[in-house]
Amino acid sequence: MGNDVPGPRELSRSVTLGELAARFGCELDGATDTVVKRVATLSGADADAVSFLANPHFRSQLADTRAAAVILEEQHRADCPVASLVSTNPYAAYARIAAFLHPPCDIEPAVHATATIAADAIVAESARVGPNVVIGPASVVGDRAMIGAGSVIGANVSIAADSRLLARVTVLDGVTVGARCLIHPGVVIGSDGFGFAEDEDAWVKVPQLGGVTIGDDVEIGANTTIDRGTIENTVIEDGVKLDNLVQIAHNVRVGAHTVMAAMSGAAGSTKIGRRCKVGGGVVMINHLEICDDVMFTFRSVVTKSVRTPGVYGGSLPADEAQRWRRNAARFRQLDALAERVRAIEKIGRHTESIKKTTQDQNND
Amino acid sequence: MGNDVPGPRELSRSVTLGELAARFGCELDGATDTVVKRVATLSGADADAVSFLANPHFRSQLADTRAAAVILEEQHRADCPVASLVSTNPYAAYARIAAFLHPPCDIEPAVHATATIAADAIVAESARVGPNVVIGPASVVGDRAMIGAGSVIGANVSIAADSRLLARVTVLDGVTVGARCLIHPGVVIGSDGFGFAEDEDAWVKVPQLGGVTIGDDVEIGANTTIDRGTIENTVIEDGVKLDNLVQIAHNVRVGAHTVMAAMSGAAGSTKIGRRCKVGGGVVMINHLEICDDVMFTFRSVVTKSVRTPGVYGGSLPADEAQRWRRNAARFRQLDALAERVRAIEKIGRHTESIKKTTQDQNND
Amino acid sequence: MGNDVPGPRELSRSVTLGELAARFGCELDGATDTVVKRVATLSGADADAVSFLANPHFRSQLADTRAAAVILEEQHRADCPVASLVSTNPYAAYARIAAFLHPPCDIEPAVHATATIAADAIVAESARVGPNVVIGPASVVGDRAMIGAGSVIGANVSIAADSRLLARVTVLDGVTVGARCLIHPGVVIGSDGFGFAEDEDAWVKVPQLGGVTIGDDVEIGANTTIDRGTIENTVIEDGVKLDNLVQIAHNVRVGAHTVMAAMSGAAGSTKIGRRCKVGGGVVMINHLEICDDVMFTFRSVVTKSVRTPGVYGGSLPADEAQRWRRNAARFRQLDALAERVRAIEKIGRHTESIKKTTQDQNND
Repeated sequence: MGNDVPGPRELSRSVTLGELAARFGCELDGATDTVVKRVATLSGADADAVSFLANPHFRSQLADTRAAAVILEEQHRADCPVASLVSTNPYAAYARIAAFLHPPCDIEPAVHATATIAADAIVAESARVGPNVVIGPASVVGDRAMIGAGSVIGANVSIAADSRLLARVTVLDGVTVGARCLIHPGVVIGSDGFGFAEDEDAWVKVPQLGGVTIGDDVEIGANTTIDRGTIENTVIEDGVKLDNLVQIAHNVRVGAHTVMAAMSGAAGSTKIGRRCKVGGGVVMINHLEICDDVMFTFRSVVTKSVRTPGVYGGSLPADEAQRWRRNAARFRQLDALAERVRAIEKIGRHTESIKKTTQDQNND
Repeated sequence: MGNDVPGPRELSRSVTLGELAARFGCELDGATDTVVKRVATLSGADADAVSFLANPHFRSQLADTRAAAVILEEQHRADCPVASLVSTNPYAAYARIAAFLHPPCDIEPAVHATATIAADAIVAESARVGPNVVIGPASVVGDRAMIGAGSVIGANVSIAADSRLLARVTVLDGVTVGARCLIHPGVVIGSDGFGFAEDEDAWVKVPQLGGVTIGDDVEIGANTTIDRGTIENTVIEDGVKLDNLVQIAHNVRVGAHTVMAAMSGAAGSTKIGRRCKVGGGVVMINHLEICDDVMFTFRSVVTKSVRTPGVYGGSLPADEAQRWRRNAARFRQLDALAERVRAIEKIGRHTESIKKTTQDQNND
Repeated sequence: MGNDVPGPRELSRSVTLGELAARFGCELDGATDTVVKRVATLSGADADAVSFLANPHFRSQLADTRAAAVILEEQHRADCPVASLVSTNPYAAYARIAAFLHPPCDIEPAVHATATIAADAIVAESARVGPNVVIGPASVVGDRAMIGAGSVIGANVSIAADSRLLARVTVLDGVTVGARCLIHPGVVIGSDGFGFAEDEDAWVKVPQLGGVTIGDDVEIGANTTIDRGTIENTVIEDGVKLDNLVQIAHNVRVGAHTVMAAMSGAAGSTKIGRRCKVGGGVVMINHLEICDDVMFTFRSVVTKSVRTPGVYGGSLPADEAQRWRRNAARFRQLDALAERVRAIEKIGRHTESIKKTTQDQNND
């Protein structure tokens, strides 16, 4: 019987290096018939494992590896003490080989006896619905989709084929999730946006009437929250990857293939372009437009729209505390300091003429 | 049968502009008998929709709207190509009209067969308890309250009338929730405060014995966490609105009608006044006192008590990465820079006297 | 019958001050036979309560306390109007006395009828499994452990003796949790790390094949997320305390007895030493090594490895908004300002020689 909650992949395949090279477009420098059956780190590998070198951080570990083979770039081939699988993009080749050697379990179709499914909900025969799942009226679960234990699906929700909600995911009414998505535990999609109108010292709730549209091939990390739109939909386009504890406010649009690292967030109505890379802890204020191919480094605070692709930064690195405090104290006087410099420069211009005068006198 | 998980409001009413104007105190500039049945954005509206102009960001869209009517301020009436519903507070008027046109579903009283309710818990007959809900001993659920699917309610908890816990909310023992609250999925109320006493390189847990008191009309966003007090209670007063992923530590008090945007937080024992506005990502250290009517802008770090109402800021906006790095490098030398300026000024004072001397010489 | 969800401790013991002094190594300055039965704050205590003075913040409340006794340091004994329990570490003594007076409920062994437990999972007879819990194949729950309502435990998970998962905790496949851990609601352990290889404008998922190892005596706050390792395990060592909404990325190691306050996080592969203190909202980038006994103050951004124990800071305190904006605007010109100061200094060196020349002239 299948597993009601997912986890690391227990199964692994045995395959020759020759087959890996052929299947994943690598050039093999070594014996074609060596059999491997798992991936490992350079330092942790032994003779049945294939490893990789993608991050220069680990280059020093190459010389001592006992892996059967290492996936690497041409430039490192000469330094590899074992077989090489040479690739122009070793990290992507590794990702594909790792997925091939350690395939995810198939979804075994089943609806758990403890699931509560509305009479008019439609669950594909090939789908899997775990224990204690709740699925609301008029919702649809596609082929081979998995709704993990304890998940709550509202009304009029659509979960397309091959998507997996691992466990304890909440998808509220009117949300659409595309195909092949992977949604981690604790995710909430379709909570109300944070909208209140101020009226004489109190707040009038602005009804949040829109939905959420999630594209295909989206991954959403644990405990991330995505609010429904105020009137129209919040949109996460195809191929977007959101890490853990990310906040997507109402009416936001995240462009295709954009990645947002943990604890980042976008405030209401901000539109993020395609292929952007948003570092951990980055926050964007509301109503911004960020063009395609923008990268924000770790912990930046984005307060203006960005119309030029490129890299943008915004955090001050921690420092030894006493030095930090001295500099931070000076920051509070920075405007005054700049004014003092300007005053000096004014005098300086006088001094320059004095200098000239004095030199003239001396030259006399 | 009612819906076991909530979502956007499917129902809408049909109503004339005349009735809206009368009911919500707007001045109607247009035909009283035009019928509308939904709200829409200025650009998305058609002839059965009422729209609004509250944020100047959208002013340019007014000229082309095809809405039946637009809720707006007097100053924009002349520019409106369709009927106007003139209000001194168009956003609040919009909020009320939207709620009127799209009323939330009524709670249909029911206790789901899969709920686990302690024998001595008291659930009002008009309340709704969803699938897989757990309610502990001596807890009370008030009239027309809704405890959504998968929620866990501890012992001695009180949820007052008309409050809605949407789904997968956890309320631990001894917590009191007021009336008409709206609590989003993933919220945890009553987790232990983070209290440990250091003792010879290890930590002794400080028992967290207090509770949490949540006032009336409070809204709490998805995956927000509110810790119980150490000895006395953590308190969220009436009308407070907390966004998603907010952290409220033990013994904190949040004053009435204060709003805290996503990813903000208050550390232990900090007291926040009434009607404060806490921007996204703002954090406050422990043991602060913030007076009423304070606004902290986006991502501020609050390290001192605030005794004067007003606006306080504290984040540096992201910049083009190279420029950011140059400036950030200078920040590490800021104290030294200030000392250099002071040294120049000292010399400058000499120079001033030199200048005077030289001028005197020249005037000789 | 036992409680299916935990909360504050209802029970309290009655005990004499003499017994407390003897049991917890305090020196009693007062009547040995006074009976106390609860702890309280200095200001909230009455005659059956023991209070404490550990934080100088509360010193002013000592004079007016009506507690039966106050736990305090020798230096405050003379100022105490009631009995004193003198300790060299009053906060730790308080923590132990509070736990003694308000013991947590015993776990009453039981497996709730609504739990779904795999046939080959092993649950100790002395353990407690709450309503709607799911436990996957080959998992083990140790003696007196508690798996609270709505928790989801994957396959091949091990939860050691006396650990308590309060409610709605998710522990995915292959995770090991040590003894005496306390895990708060909404925690997710074993979600996939955020690993993707870029390949022609799209992302290839890097399979996350490692597990998570949690040591003994670890506490994990509400809605905190801990990702599984990419190949090897993410590790949380013994005695670590994580607050709410903390993010631990794949391959991170958190050293023994380190504490991380709310909303802090460590990015992939970072290794944090033992006995570190990580303030609220602190984030560390990936691949860092932080040595033992490092403290990062509130909201620091850590971008470099730290090899020297000590205190490191990194946040700028919020300021009155207009002043903040002026200083922040100057920050954008800081590099230019430093260059201007350097230019002045260059001229200054000329000026110095002028000054010397002028003085020589005057001395002539």
